[in-house]
Amino acid sequence: MPRGRVLLGHGSGGKLSHELIESLFLPQLTNPILQTLDDSAVCSLQGSLKARATKMEGRIALTTDSYVVRPLFFPGGDIGRLAVCGTVNDLSMVGATPLFLSAAFILEEGLPLTTLRRIVASLRRAAREAKVKIVTGDTKVVERGSADGLFINTAGVGIVPDGVNISGSNARPGDAVILSGSIADHGISVLLERAKMGFVNSVKSDIAPLNHLVAVMLRTSQNLHALRDPTRGGLATTLVEIAHQSNVAIRILEEKIVVKQEVAAACEVLGYDPLYVANEGKLIAIVASEDAERVVDSMKKTRYGKQATIIGEVLPDPKGRVLMKTRVGGTRIVDMLSSEQFPRIC
Amino acid sequence: MPRGRVLLGHGSGGKLSHELIESLFLPQLTNPILQTLDDSAVCSLQGSLKARATKMEGRIALTTDSYVVRPLFFPGGDIGRLAVCGTVNDLSMVGATPLFLSAAFILEEGLPLTTLRRIVASLRRAAREAKVKIVTGDTKVVERGSADGLFINTAGVGIVPDGVNISGSNARPGDAVILSGSIADHGISVLLERAKMGFVNSVKSDIAPLNHLVAVMLRTSQNLHALRDPTRGGLATTLVEIAHQSNVAIRILEEKIVVKQEVAAACEVLGYDPLYVANEGKLIAIVASEDAERVVDSMKKTRYGKQATIIGEVLPDPKGRVLMKTRVGGTRIVDMLSSEQFPRIC
Repeated sequence: MPRGRVLLGHGSGGKLSHELIESLFLPQLTNPILQTLDDSAVCSLQGSLKARATKMEGRIALTTDSYVVRPLFFPGGDIGRLAVCGTVNDLSMVGATPLFLSAAFILEEGLPLTTLRRIVASLRRAAREAKVKIVTGDTKVVERGSADGLFINTAGVGIVPDGVNISGSNARPGDAVILSGSIADHGISVLLERAKMGFVNSVKSDIAPLNHLVAVMLRTSQNLHALRDPTRGGLATTLVEIAHQSNVAIRILEEKIVVKQEVAAACEVLGYDPLYVANEGKLIAIVASEDAERVVDSMKKTRYGKQATIIGEVLPDPKGRVLMKTRVGGTRIVDMLSSEQFPRIC
Repeated sequence: MPRGRVLLGHGSGGKLSHELIESLFLPQLTNPILQTLDDSAVCSLQGSLKARATKMEGRIALTTDSYVVRPLFFPGGDIGRLAVCGTVNDLSMVGATPLFLSAAFILEEGLPLTTLRRIVASLRRAAREAKVKIVTGDTKVVERGSADGLFINTAGVGIVPDGVNISGSNARPGDAVILSGSIADHGISVLLERAKMGFVNSVKSDIAPLNHLVAVMLRTSQNLHALRDPTRGGLATTLVEIAHQSNVAIRILEEKIVVKQEVAAACEVLGYDPLYVANEGKLIAIVASEDAERVVDSMKKTRYGKQATIIGEVLPDPKGRVLMKTRVGGTRIVDMLSSEQFPRIC
């Protein structure tokens, strides 16, 4: 069993690579598909479907994200949990049932193996919570100084059930805009952790797999038009994206948007607008107005939707615009994040 | 349109990210699935199947690889072509028909956009040659010094046709071992390029998509037992993996293994054994002996199989071992690559 630190040889494809896979990755992540160790994982969609009693017309969802968050650990999560939840959530946002994930690691020479082991353990726990299987992977090692500790890429495959057609381009005037909970927790947690210099950081990231929440919503309404998780760029950027894609306006009410007290305080001190700060366990749903209350009620019964609420509505005009009615009664145009506010937040 | 160099803001998820996607990635890679720009790509398996007249029992193949090759460009290829072909080939090695790829970029702040554009163009050409679609992607930017120019991860999804069951664990005593062409071209090309210091490097990488070759082989024989592309670790390591997985011995003949003259010369000067040097456009096939000649003949008619030949056979014992009959008539045990011979070769 390799001890100590990651060596260049762990990426060679030879004996050390095999040792790393067999001593560190497989014991944590093993399942019958992964352990074949062939060049690709062969996965049965039918078997997975039967187990979940979903029908299928032959559409799958595919997504990918690389995770470069710094630091690797922060309150409420770490890069491993992020790598699973981020990709599970991207699949969920088109209404897909996430099934299979790949996990590819770029390791910097010298990374302590205990760090890697902790991250893989967290990744496993998140995969278990989301009920997805890690079925294939890859490990590369780059020289000291050529990567920043560890980057993870996950790709995910899910099945899109019959009749489900959810897209950022499907918002319609009259639809309600639902937000599943408080905003800015993830970004502020990471930023405080990065800057804390010995202080205690009490803000926890909201990283969570949202597939079970979305499953409940899909069972409740046939009229979910758009879903999106407001990660990089925050709630504001994500709403602007939807307004653009659907060629509609979105009007939200500031008073309906929940920001935890400690998060709001940190935003004020640091000079950030919580509307632009990343979330990793929240979603926006654009839903036909007649179903909106019912959808919110169903969300509130789930672990990650307890604070769900209607925050606004879709309007025909001005197209591509997001407007916010402020607490003091004014109306403000909400634009996309215009440059780099937060490097390496996910 | 962003000019010049990659900025941290290109990874923010905000305006600059959108500009980069719309000005650089989409014009080259666009297709109806990619351009929805939702959180996941929704892909129809049935449509793809009809187009290819393949039957399916609901099995897909999923694979992933991160590419960290240095330098980014070398004779015969670059990191973009590598990222497509490597993943297409991993899908092909379980007999799958590659259909959809994801592409995730980790960019170092300061990378010239012209470099990125060249790489994306190469990636597109390779995808076109392999007849696969890039359907989803991701871009992250890390600070100067936190990554080495550019890393690419691709994941791939393919369909495993009915009745196909190809695995490194399926080699059987009596099977023939086929190699599709000369070895060590890729690794030596990259190593010479890295070290050339102004000299001309005449060794070309063999990077190629092997899915069309595999399709021909699948049409020719129902008795393909194992396929593997000998990348990191080279021919030797790959054969040892198969011997282990299948619990058999493999005996190869040195005289049957083709090494180009300039590659052999470079190996001699640099002190490398070509058996351990990476390939990116070659495959090993373990085939029932009665079909072997027919399979070789079919391979020779294809672009990337012209030098296909039988290089050995599968034996019952000694289990897990690879033996090579040398040119001078002795027998040598061939082991796995034992440590890091070539960092950053793919």
